[in-house]
Amino acid sequence: MKKLLAVLAVAFPIGAQAALVDDVRNWRAGHEAEIVARLSELTRLRSVAADPEGLTNTANRLLALLKERGFAAQLLPAAGAPPVVFAELKAPGAKRTVTFYAHYDGQPVTPSEWHSEPFTPTMRPGKMESGKGDARGIDMKTAKPPFDPEWRLFGRAAGDDKSSIAAFLAAFDALKAAGRAPSVNIKVVWEGEEERGSAHLEAVLRGNRALLASDLWLIGDGPMHQSRTPTLYFGARGSMGLEAVIYGPLSALHDGHYGNWVPNPAAMAAEFITALRDSEGGIAIPGFSSDVRPLTAAETQAIAELPPVEAALKQEFGIGRSEGAAGLTASTMRPAINVRGFRAGQVGAQAANAIPTEAAVSFDFRLVPGQTPANVRKKVEDYIKAKGWTVVTADPDAAMRAAHGRIVKLAWGGGYAALRSDMDSPAAKAVIASAGRAAGTKLALLPMMGGSVPINMFEDVFHVPIIGLPIANHDNNQHAADENLRLANLWAGIEVYAGLMADLNW
Amino acid sequence: MKKLLAVLAVAFPIGAQAALVDDVRNWRAGHEAEIVARLSELTRLRSVAADPEGLTNTANRLLALLKERGFAAQLLPAAGAPPVVFAELKAPGAKRTVTFYAHYDGQPVTPSEWHSEPFTPTMRPGKMESGKGDARGIDMKTAKPPFDPEWRLFGRAAGDDKSSIAAFLAAFDALKAAGRAPSVNIKVVWEGEEERGSAHLEAVLRGNRALLASDLWLIGDGPMHQSRTPTLYFGARGSMGLEAVIYGPLSALHDGHYGNWVPNPAAMAAEFITALRDSEGGIAIPGFSSDVRPLTAAETQAIAELPPVEAALKQEFGIGRSEGAAGLTASTMRPAINVRGFRAGQVGAQAANAIPTEAAVSFDFRLVPGQTPANVRKKVEDYIKAKGWTVVTADPDAAMRAAHGRIVKLAWGGGYAALRSDMDSPAAKAVIASAGRAAGTKLALLPMMGGSVPINMFEDVFHVPIIGLPIANHDNNQHAADENLRLANLWAGIEVYAGLMADLNW
Repeated sequence: MKKLLAVLAVAFPIGAQAALVDDVRNWRAGHEAEIVARLSELTRLRSVAADPEGLTNTANRLLALLKERGFAAQLLPAAGAPPVVFAELKAPGAKRTVTFYAHYDGQPVTPSEWHSEPFTPTMRPGKMESGKGDARGIDMKTAKPPFDPEWRLFGRAAGDDKSSIAAFLAAFDALKAAGRAPSVNIKVVWEGEEERGSAHLEAVLRGNRALLASDLWLIGDGPMHQSRTPTLYFGARGSMGLEAVIYGPLSALHDGHYGNWVPNPAAMAAEFITALRDSEGGIAIPGFSSDVRPLTAAETQAIAELPPVEAALKQEFGIGRSEGAAGLTASTMRPAINVRGFRAGQVGAQAANAIPTEAAVSFDFRLVPGQTPANVRKKVEDYIKAKGWTVVTADPDAAMRAAHGRIVKLAWGGGYAALRSDMDSPAAKAVIASAGRAAGTKLALLPMMGGSVPINMFEDVFHVPIIGLPIANHDNNQHAADENLRLANLWAGIEVYAGLMADLNW
Repeated sequence: MKKLLAVLAVAFPIGAQAALVDDVRNWRAGHEAEIVARLSELTRLRSVAADPEGLTNTANRLLALLKERGFAAQLLPAAGAPPVVFAELKAPGAKRTVTFYAHYDGQPVTPSEWHSEPFTPTMRPGKMESGKGDARGIDMKTAKPPFDPEWRLFGRAAGDDKSSIAAFLAAFDALKAAGRAPSVNIKVVWEGEEERGSAHLEAVLRGNRALLASDLWLIGDGPMHQSRTPTLYFGARGSMGLEAVIYGPLSALHDGHYGNWVPNPAAMAAEFITALRDSEGGIAIPGFSSDVRPLTAAETQAIAELPPVEAALKQEFGIGRSEGAAGLTASTMRPAINVRGFRAGQVGAQAANAIPTEAAVSFDFRLVPGQTPANVRKKVEDYIKAKGWTVVTADPDAAMRAAHGRIVKLAWGGGYAALRSDMDSPAAKAVIASAGRAAGTKLALLPMMGGSVPINMFEDVFHVPIIGLPIANHDNNQHAADENLRLANLWAGIEVYAGLMADLNW
């Protein structure tokens, strides 16, 4: 009976909750220009690793925005990394404390690949690929709300992850305007090194364990399910970068006179890649998956209940096949070796008939529960060595190059492990219920997100439930050129954030 | 007996020939600054495909230089390509006519990879890699001859192939100064499109067949044997370029959320490369070599007599292995698929965790006798298709990309076939004897050069012997950054050129 009532509570929002959703929606409808201006302001701040000043400016601005709203806010310094923005607001009578995590840094940019400058927020009626967007965009000085919810704001980090910060701030403002108090004590942790692997975050967490203590972490990051159904996720794959350099001759050589006698490093790089992964994304390293923790029945069931998206995505992405036949979410439950890029010699009009001196390959490993960066690294290196490669960590000199047939320089990124947390904990059930009421629909529940956020770290340090709360559209070009946020996602995100601030109890 | 006398004539230069070599050497010793200034002047002219004006200026300058020397010279227009510089000088009483071929265009440049600007000729005491060279170079305004013959002049096309032109001009001037008449009628064909495959040259040859008629072509191109022994070659591999583009998703996708479900075009490109060639440079296409004409016993013998260079070259090039175990010259008798470069996504600090939208690979095929560009192309395409690729020649649209699992866009360069001509023809024997007298040593005789010059075309059109006369040092960084010419090679080249102008008869 108790269970039935709980189900009814999700399916038929109670009056107070309906009123809350209405209050938030009405406030948003009256403040669309202001909300977009806030996200634009944040997007304009050049918070990327290549621009330390941009990261500092962003942290300071976020600090000010939180203080304006009555939070006790401070910057937690992180040696060798941008500071963590921390803030706290106690709710009278609340028995639970919830930490809202997001990150304010964005991926590196290659401006030449963008249709507008990455840090000049540009509103367009749709995706560039749809033919609806032009480089100039909509003139927001003259655009009048209500804005078309299909409009998108383009700019680095507009989706990943400043949309989460903008939704948090707007939700808070909406609640305040409606005179609604939070139902939980709120803490904020917004970090600035997520896109480089959050290598310095754990030290900050451990160094401020009491300050950061809470009952639940809500991870505001990642994209919503491709069905555009409001989404929660209960874990994320881990991540580790690897830069490999493979060596050819000391100086570039004429490939007619020396080709097929002098080894070609681009061809060797191709062999290196195909030795690691097959054409279905399978990893060729023997025993690589022996540590992997299998999915539980509940996790398998949750995946089976997701709306099917594969056929639509193949059209959307313009791909005629997938790697593996398991479906998108099931595929991303596997460990992965991705190739982020490669470079050797020149192509096209600039191509010279020469054997290049070296080839560079950038890899991105995705880890699943049971794997650690250290054991992945060891398995990869052992395998490469067994294949006849000499592994080095600094540029080899001429004598070393002449002494070894296959040399690869490996530079590993720090990386972190994956997490799949319990979908059945009391906190998890409360979040599912609250978010469901705010969204007014059955949620997409993902046991683990394909992308990575360093949530294993929160689990390791705090031993509390970790739940992901993504709001960006899946087609936001996250990590690529023309990153964007669809306004409908921001509107929906504000409502779910408000629900989880003012209508969450367990 | 006749054969013995011929051998003695090579081994013990006759008086007149010794006097000729002395005359040329003495003239060169007195004119080193002038010879270097000439090569510098030519190197300064930006004769690369990206600079049509530079090509035109070079052709005009060469025309003037030949006219100054009493040649009947003209530019032969080539529709869609730089003009061919043609010149002719009749020698009283000569019964043979020899055409001296060279090319005045250079490979494309990537200035950022050079230690000095590619078209600013820079003299250095040795190779950059030797530690002897600095970026600034030797001040030639104050340097006094005799110059150290180990000095090198750096600049695009200084070695490939303006050194041949400079040697021709200096040899001619030396003979004139010594009052020595040529023993053959001389024709000059200097083209400007060799580095792009000489696609328009054959039409010029066929359109001017009578004007260009001769008894022998001497191909002034390519590097001397690595032993630094004066060299003749009797053929060259053919060449054909191929630019391949392999497609991933329409826009770059987060490789955590989509990696190992959405196909990765960089990984596909690696598979594409390894499907074509193995790690020993062997070509994996079944039947690819079925057309290949085997070496004759004489050709095999000539290769066996070459000074061994492999161990020294491995040290010089800093390579710990070779592709295949057959030795350098034997290896380059095979057909080859070289990778000139590849590009996808980004590497290093700019690498983003994204699946790239496409990957580009630049290939360079080297053909051997028996193969034609058309049959190589067909075999490659048939094989690729059998491997499941859809081959296109224009960018596929979104619908096509969604309909095919593996799409590759192929853009073939024109290309040309290989040639190995008869090492035992009367003309070949006369050239071997004359060059041997001028060089004063046993020559390195290569049945076929690994690099390509379009000499099959001369054979096709004129049906006369074709012999290669390379003078550039093998370590001239031909086709790469820091291309250079070693002065000792230029000095030796002048002597051999003079011998072949004034001491060649059959």
